[in-house]
Amino acid sequence: MLEEKISMAGRKYAIIGTGGIGGYYGGRLARSGQEVHFLLRSDYEAVREDGLRVDSVDGDFRIFPAKAYNDTRQMPRCDVILVCMKTTGNTALATMLAPLLHENSLVILIQNGLDMEQELSAALPGAILAGATAFICTFKVGPGHVRHAAYGDLSLAPFHQAAEMLLPAVMDDMRQAGITVRYEPDLRLLRWQKLVWNIPYNGLTVVLDATTAELTFQPDSRRLVISLMREVTAAAACCGAEIADSFIDRMITLTEKMTPYAPSMKLDYDAGRPMEIRTMYLNPLQQARQAGFEMKKVQMLADLLSFMQERRLNSK
Amino acid sequence: MLEEKISMAGRKYAIIGTGGIGGYYGGRLARSGQEVHFLLRSDYEAVREDGLRVDSVDGDFRIFPAKAYNDTRQMPRCDVILVCMKTTGNTALATMLAPLLHENSLVILIQNGLDMEQELSAALPGAILAGATAFICTFKVGPGHVRHAAYGDLSLAPFHQAAEMLLPAVMDDMRQAGITVRYEPDLRLLRWQKLVWNIPYNGLTVVLDATTAELTFQPDSRRLVISLMREVTAAAACCGAEIADSFIDRMITLTEKMTPYAPSMKLDYDAGRPMEIRTMYLNPLQQARQAGFEMKKVQMLADLLSFMQERRLNSK
Repeated sequence: MLEEKISMAGRKYAIIGTGGIGGYYGGRLARSGQEVHFLLRSDYEAVREDGLRVDSVDGDFRIFPAKAYNDTRQMPRCDVILVCMKTTGNTALATMLAPLLHENSLVILIQNGLDMEQELSAALPGAILAGATAFICTFKVGPGHVRHAAYGDLSLAPFHQAAEMLLPAVMDDMRQAGITVRYEPDLRLLRWQKLVWNIPYNGLTVVLDATTAELTFQPDSRRLVISLMREVTAAAACCGAEIADSFIDRMITLTEKMTPYAPSMKLDYDAGRPMEIRTMYLNPLQQARQAGFEMKKVQMLADLLSFMQERRLNSK
Repeated sequence: MLEEKISMAGRKYAIIGTGGIGGYYGGRLARSGQEVHFLLRSDYEAVREDGLRVDSVDGDFRIFPAKAYNDTRQMPRCDVILVCMKTTGNTALATMLAPLLHENSLVILIQNGLDMEQELSAALPGAILAGATAFICTFKVGPGHVRHAAYGDLSLAPFHQAAEMLLPAVMDDMRQAGITVRYEPDLRLLRWQKLVWNIPYNGLTVVLDATTAELTFQPDSRRLVISLMREVTAAAACCGAEIADSFIDRMITLTEKMTPYAPSMKLDYDAGRPMEIRTMYLNPLQQARQAGFEMKKVQMLADLLSFMQERRLNSK
């Protein structure tokens, strides 16, 4: 009863980047009655006129009207800001977020890679940051139209100590919105765990133009996936994030059970968008190197992806 | 004068596999007056009727009539057998060669990879073997029609001690045929040196669908090429073949000066032929591993190529 009242008191939410991830989580929060302000770029007009449509395995819904913006300077200061953009746009992030923040705003980066919180914290001192990883299959199918195909769990971890205080209430909001959430006290561990899957599957689906299923069932690529995962866990251990070998087995088993799947980097590459090579590969490589560990195969994968990305840019 | 007489005495040559390499070297020998017997498969009828055509940067020529065969059992026993086939056909090699051999026949494997001589020697005991590497840009442009675009040097090394005695006269024949030849006493060194270039450039041109020039000039792929070369020289050293770092610099400089080039494995892949993954990657990986060295990036390249090859086979 008390919890409900606190929740009813209402937090203002901002969704920065209303694609598959932002549209889904922001949509769920808005649908549960939260005040959610959506930042959009290309879909701004469509969402302003027709709202946000979410086709979900858990039931389709529509947010109409949706509080749509195409500039953060038009948005109100918010209590919780969910950053759901690709990290390729992160250089502009501090400037974008500044107008949204009050003293106790919590910024949650639902992004792929490593060190995004360190980078943003340096560019935006005083902001209270947390990180999150989404285990979800969701993507945009049209303007203001998102399809949520599977899963949906969100794991959250504080970056600043102040975030520890703010996260529980936010997670309650999310639970009430039907989102499965998990609190992880160690952001570093959360980020490295996610990389165990992300590093092999994102890169190899691009380099080999293959699905997660092909990579997992063909013996040569399966061995390669596992050896990349082992490099990542070895690097993680050097960086202070202990991940058990059984975690690799779980990731493989999980991927075997998934429908053939194109990870976000594969979708980006096929759509001609830049890939998140820096945060997903170069930052972990640098952290590991500073801790005295060379991820040789991961470096090779990063080199292959960088070559492909540059060729793509030059051909435009 | 004496040398000339020995040469005039005449050796019978067999060319096993009359593609770009076999057609060029066999053609040169035949043109210089040697008795050369060509084994062909798909081009048999064409060469039998119209001879062998070689368009060479050093001057075009034609061998007509050419001694063409489609079965080694129809061929005479020969003194020198140049094996110019892809190693992907090597399982049948011993059976193919048996009818051609007399007691002092010299079999020279002009092939890519490692351990071809060991394997053939095990399958064909008593045969006198040598190995050779060709630094040449040559390829088939039509039935019985070869284009020699650049270079042409042949380096030869004995596998059996008896080959040391036989090689000098053969090399004289080759010189008289206008072929630049070099004697290398250490076959192991010769094979590993060739792998320094072959391993990165053959595999990466396939995986990245790129030319040698693109790989050499783009910074990410150039770094990857060099790191693969370093893995190969480190493995070679463990296997007893010392290759100086300056050799890598020379290979890079050489490739910078070459016209953009598709190595043999790239031509094979694009034409839907099997790739020489076993001899060019798996055999060196195994030798290095037995010597206590893991070529991690080479293993990754082998895994990528094996995946691509298997997918190709399955899609047929």
